Amino acid sequence: MSRVEKNNIPRPYNLIANERANNSDFSVDEMFKFLEGNSDQHANSILEISKLLERDLVLRNKPGYYENTSKDEIRRTTFLKVKQLALYCERIVAEQLANGVPYDKIDISQYNNILFTYAVYDPQTVTRIAIHSGLFYSAIKGNGTKAQFNYWAFEREGLYAKGVYGCFGMTELAHGSNVAALETTAEYDFKTKTFTINTPHIGATKWWIGGAATTANHCCVYARLIVKGKDYGVKTFIVQLRDVDHHLIPGVSIGDIGAKMGRQGIDNGWIQFTNVKIPKNFMLQKYVQINDDEEEVINSPMDQLAYGALLGGRVGMVMDSYRVGAKVTTIALRYAVGRRQFGKAVNKETNFASPQQVDNSLKLEKQLIDYPNHQYRLIPLLATAYCLSSAAYRMVRNLDAVNSALESTQLLKNKKFLFKTIEDLKEVFVISAAVKPSSTWYGAKAIDECRQACGGHGYSAYSSFGQTYNDWVVQCTWEGDNNVLSMNSGRSMTKYRQSALKGRPVPSQFKFLTKSYKPSDFAKLDFSDNARLLELFDFMVISMIDEVVAQLKKYNKDFDKVGPLMLNTAKFFCQRYYLESVLLYFDATEANSSIKPALVNIINLFALYTIKENSGVFLRFGLLSQSQIALVESRIFDDLLPFLRHRIVALTDAFKLSDFFINTPLGNYDGDIYNKYFDLVNSVNNNKSDYDDYAYQDEILKFLKRGSIEEREYHEKDAKTLEKLGK
Amino acid sequence: MSRVEKNNIPRPYNLIANERANNSDFSVDEMFKFLEGNSDQHANSILEISKLLERDLVLRNKPGYYENTSKDEIRRTTFLKVKQLALYCERIVAEQLANGVPYDKIDISQYNNILFTYAVYDPQTVTRIAIHSGLFYSAIKGNGTKAQFNYWAFEREGLYAKGVYGCFGMTELAHGSNVAALETTAEYDFKTKTFTINTPHIGATKWWIGGAATTANHCCVYARLIVKGKDYGVKTFIVQLRDVDHHLIPGVSIGDIGAKMGRQGIDNGWIQFTNVKIPKNFMLQKYVQINDDEEEVINSPMDQLAYGALLGGRVGMVMDSYRVGAKVTTIALRYAVGRRQFGKAVNKETNFASPQQVDNSLKLEKQLIDYPNHQYRLIPLLATAYCLSSAAYRMVRNLDAVNSALESTQLLKNKKFLFKTIEDLKEVFVISAAVKPSSTWYGAKAIDECRQACGGHGYSAYSSFGQTYNDWVVQCTWEGDNNVLSMNSGRSMTKYRQSALKGRPVPSQFKFLTKSYKPSDFAKLDFSDNARLLELFDFMVISMIDEVVAQLKKYNKDFDKVGPLMLNTAKFFCQRYYLESVLLYFDATEANSSIKPALVNIINLFALYTIKENSGVFLRFGLLSQSQIALVESRIFDDLLPFLRHRIVALTDAFKLSDFFINTPLGNYDGDIYNKYFDLVNSVNNNKSDYDDYAYQDEILKFLKRGSIEEREYHEKDAKTLEKLGK
Repeated sequence: MSRVEKNNIPRPYNLIANERANNSDFSVDEMFKFLEGNSDQHANSILEISKLLERDLVLRNKPGYYENTSKDEIRRTTFLKVKQLALYCERIVAEQLANGVPYDKIDISQYNNILFTYAVYDPQTVTRIAIHSGLFYSAIKGNGTKAQFNYWAFEREGLYAKGVYGCFGMTELAHGSNVAALETTAEYDFKTKTFTINTPHIGATKWWIGGAATTANHCCVYARLIVKGKDYGVKTFIVQLRDVDHHLIPGVSIGDIGAKMGRQGIDNGWIQFTNVKIPKNFMLQKYVQINDDEEEVINSPMDQLAYGALLGGRVGMVMDSYRVGAKVTTIALRYAVGRRQFGKAVNKETNFASPQQVDNSLKLEKQLIDYPNHQYRLIPLLATAYCLSSAAYRMVRNLDAVNSALESTQLLKNKKFLFKTIEDLKEVFVISAAVKPSSTWYGAKAIDECRQACGGHGYSAYSSFGQTYNDWVVQCTWEGDNNVLSMNSGRSMTKYRQSALKGRPVPSQFKFLTKSYKPSDFAKLDFSDNARLLELFDFMVISMIDEVVAQLKKYNKDFDKVGPLMLNTAKFFCQRYYLESVLLYFDATEANSSIKPALVNIINLFALYTIKENSGVFLRFGLLSQSQIALVESRIFDDLLPFLRHRIVALTDAFKLSDFFINTPLGNYDGDIYNKYFDLVNSVNNNKSDYDDYAYQDEILKFLKRGSIEEREYHEKDAKTLEKLGK
Repeated sequence: MSRVEKNNIPRPYNLIANERANNSDFSVDEMFKFLEGNSDQHANSILEISKLLERDLVLRNKPGYYENTSKDEIRRTTFLKVKQLALYCERIVAEQLANGVPYDKIDISQYNNILFTYAVYDPQTVTRIAIHSGLFYSAIKGNGTKAQFNYWAFEREGLYAKGVYGCFGMTELAHGSNVAALETTAEYDFKTKTFTINTPHIGATKWWIGGAATTANHCCVYARLIVKGKDYGVKTFIVQLRDVDHHLIPGVSIGDIGAKMGRQGIDNGWIQFTNVKIPKNFMLQKYVQINDDEEEVINSPMDQLAYGALLGGRVGMVMDSYRVGAKVTTIALRYAVGRRQFGKAVNKETNFASPQQVDNSLKLEKQLIDYPNHQYRLIPLLATAYCLSSAAYRMVRNLDAVNSALESTQLLKNKKFLFKTIEDLKEVFVISAAVKPSSTWYGAKAIDECRQACGGHGYSAYSSFGQTYNDWVVQCTWEGDNNVLSMNSGRSMTKYRQSALKGRPVPSQFKFLTKSYKPSDFAKLDFSDNARLLELFDFMVISMIDEVVAQLKKYNKDFDKVGPLMLNTAKFFCQRYYLESVLLYFDATEANSSIKPALVNIINLFALYTIKENSGVFLRFGLLSQSQIALVESRIFDDLLPFLRHRIVALTDAFKLSDFFINTPLGNYDGDIYNKYFDLVNSVNNNKSDYDDYAYQDEILKFLKRGSIEEREYHEKDAKTLEKLGK
């Protein structure tokens, strides 16, 4: 026994162990492979990286990780981890250079996979270094020439934070989403061949710049190019912020923007520029050049291609959403299996190590997971994570293909190839603009619902939910505010649909917009048929877009007026995209795979849950009837939830998140919830023999033992005193 | 000018000042009175208390309030404020005692109003003292005799934290919501006339006990009364935890449960009892006594009345929900008026102090508030706060009436009066079990949506949203988990409906369940008619309950199976309750009041928003047609939102939350968003001449300037070295 106890105690570990042993009819390994892009290679790579991370003592957080530590202390420990990650990157690059790989061919995808995997454990550390190696260098890659990228990344060795530590100077205090309206200026002087960078007023102060407050010595500044008084729009410039002694360059003002809701470990700062001069070639010149002889600006219309490099962040956030969903549903579902409350236990024997031990005198309560309401709160979130994983891998692969095309020598030689690449890039852009928002909102909702599903203990810092939520929710705002992105995506889809109706070509992943359906097609829909449900989802997106078009007529083509509708269209498109993606991957699994029965039901639950949660719109457009909604509900509650409940431990095990990644006793693999939680609380908090040594203990005692009001007021108002003072 | 700037700058303060001056057609004072229970007296009292709090330098938080401070430091500053609040309580009691008021008649409602008002500013401080003066003393009042209450509260002067500091020992590690299953035991010994308190195993450890970790010296322990081996269920016992030197009593083990998602200032702890003996009279004896002569337990069946005293907390949380909604919508809506993004400005002149100054060369962007999507995100949340205020005041008044009845001498003399009181108490119980969950969920949603609506700046700690959210969301869990409470409430409503159908009496606020409607009654519904909409809401609740009943048949009366349906019933009942309450108060306003036109539209928006958000259920039950939903949407977007948008500054001013309560530059009254935000960030963070003095600056520099891998590895792998080591 782990502590002195009588027999009559809750044993969540036996519940979980027994359910793990008895309630699984599929291979957890096969399921894991499916979740990792249906690829053995990916699945193995994730496991290898997970092992590497789990063993790294610099990257491992201390038990006090969830304590309120001061911002400076969090910043410092985060930097130690940033250094360690940079060293991994350095090795990966060095190995390739040693093997003669040229700069242009160096592949850091292994390093990026380390970051993505570590992000579920420590998002702030990953963001902090990804601003440098991801955003800063992606901006240089996207906007700069190869020579420029190779200089900053490899000749200077900056890619792995040697000599150069970059930050990404886009957002301004008064300008977030609207990049085209940024107000920082870069004015060119043909005489000195330099740019002068200026912050015209407080609203144009660069704000939220991660790394600026303390770490960065360079910044990729987004500023308006001004030449001979003419404004050529927003371009990118490399500006040194700190010199070789890490002292600020004169004209550069920097401050720390201080505390945030989460991710305190990132040193976000503000920057103001006052007449800071940089050489001509510090402008990134892939799509814009200045011809000094003709005194003119050569502005390429293809500068939209620059954003391809930044899409990686947005697509990565979809993968993050999958992983955070996997993490929090694992915690809440394991807790739901181990925790009892109220009603009579359904099966007592699972409380015991072996069924022979059953003590029928015990009044055991019901496991949380046996309540239909609890099932409905959690299992659809798990199902969404399953479907989301396919969508995330699909998007990563699509973006990889586009980025390869962007790097291809074909690009500038072959116009057809160029146009195709531009179209493909735009397609990824539109899809990610719908899927990033809804996926990050899913993440926020999953964390919050899973926290609530763990009751009071969910509110303990050691449940991990609080910090996970606080770190997470910025994903709904940065790299494109979720509302703004969704509306933009909905707008693009509307245009695709209008093109489709006119017989013009639409991108391949929007081909479904050319279809035509009528409600009667679905009058006898078999709700267990996932492929048919996808067609219903097609119809739903089409119906929503057609409503957008109708409303646009009403409002004289004022797109702002149909904002809420476009938003909902993009939201529903995302659900459709999840379903399409997971079915694509499902169809690619082996015919006799053991995971199929569970997976079919998982997918089906996701689809039917989506219908139920959006039943207002399905009914509104007449796509389904009232009695069909009743059928959907009956299938959810009578078939799918009970089926999946009995496989629930295996379904969370299939995420293969070790206790290192779970990082809370409420969701550990062995399910020894109460002992581990109690021990963790005491290891962090109660290391002294008793509680009498608190600094303010005396203050409490002095207050409790205070004298009467009369004593504390020098008895000035006592009757005797007042007598002396007059009548 | 506040800093050196050219003319071309964003001026949110002019936007807000001009809208305040020009876009209001009602009296803000009258509206404020309406919001404070439609009572001049309440409105004035709130303003007086607000002034008192705003001026109190102990209660005022420092500018670093939103920084990551260590838990110990937050605990200490919170305790200083707890002391100050206790001193207010002491004065209020002392004044009455000096005027000869007997213990039984002492009224601390003024002190409680101070707590409620302060809670919107500093929830953790209020909770910390309210656990003592509210929960601990409410438990004594509810369960104890008058003599017991008077001793602990007044003779010992404990009520205002003199000598006695209490905590509330209900929750256990393995038992939260299910109080009846608590496992701590209190075994009576007739020989020694003492109880022995024991924690049988780790799962029964008292957990989450606010005040236990450091402050409390007494605990009201909920434990099973065991007499001669028989279990009489859970009763309440006063147990001393710490002695007069504040040292733990032997047998009492206490630990700090450490960091939480929010409210770090509360010293929650765990407690284990090992054979702790207390005298017989330390059991609270209003509803249970032990007769030593007969060696028997006298257990009153009326012990449910004890919970009346605890309902205050639950009802208070509805008021909290109103105030937090008021706070966050004020911030987000003022920000939405001052902040510009994207599209062309609708009216440029409001940017300037006077219309003569308009500079048409300025490219001004559109105010956020002019986007229909932004309006739809925020204005319904404001409208909900308006309706919620009426519901909160109504519940407070109902509970006050019940509590007066519970204190009445009639109670034990007049059986009819007793039964009526039991029924009334149950009615408040059922209503609060529906309204507390949905209101606290509204609070969480409002904070989160308002944060997102402030974009990136919403994620800054100085926006206040982060801490407000973290402090808030525990309200969805404590004093009855929202899901559990809602399902229980839905179950009671189902029973009321079944009684109603059988012609049996139902409580007055559930009389609407006796009505009968048919869909055709609403076929020609005028959606601007709030009174008719209330009837529609009646019908909706009735339809949902009838569905619960139908499903219960299907599932053989297994209430757990219909949990999700009961939950939704309670949720919708709450919306109906808001509507009914606000219409009650609206009907009581003066006929020619200037606030009526705005108020009618606010209420209408709330009702139609509720329909739109629940359209799936309205359509499912056939209460409304598809075309009616379209009408609802058109009325929201074409009439109500544009109407309210033009009064939006006045509608937030009407909450009368001064900058002290708003506590963030994003939502200050004067709207000088950027200057004040910038100044606050720098006053807290950037007080040094530059950033070169960071403790880990050297570490950064050393890392950036590190040598090559070869150097760092002692050149052991250089070709020359390897040559020496063999072939």
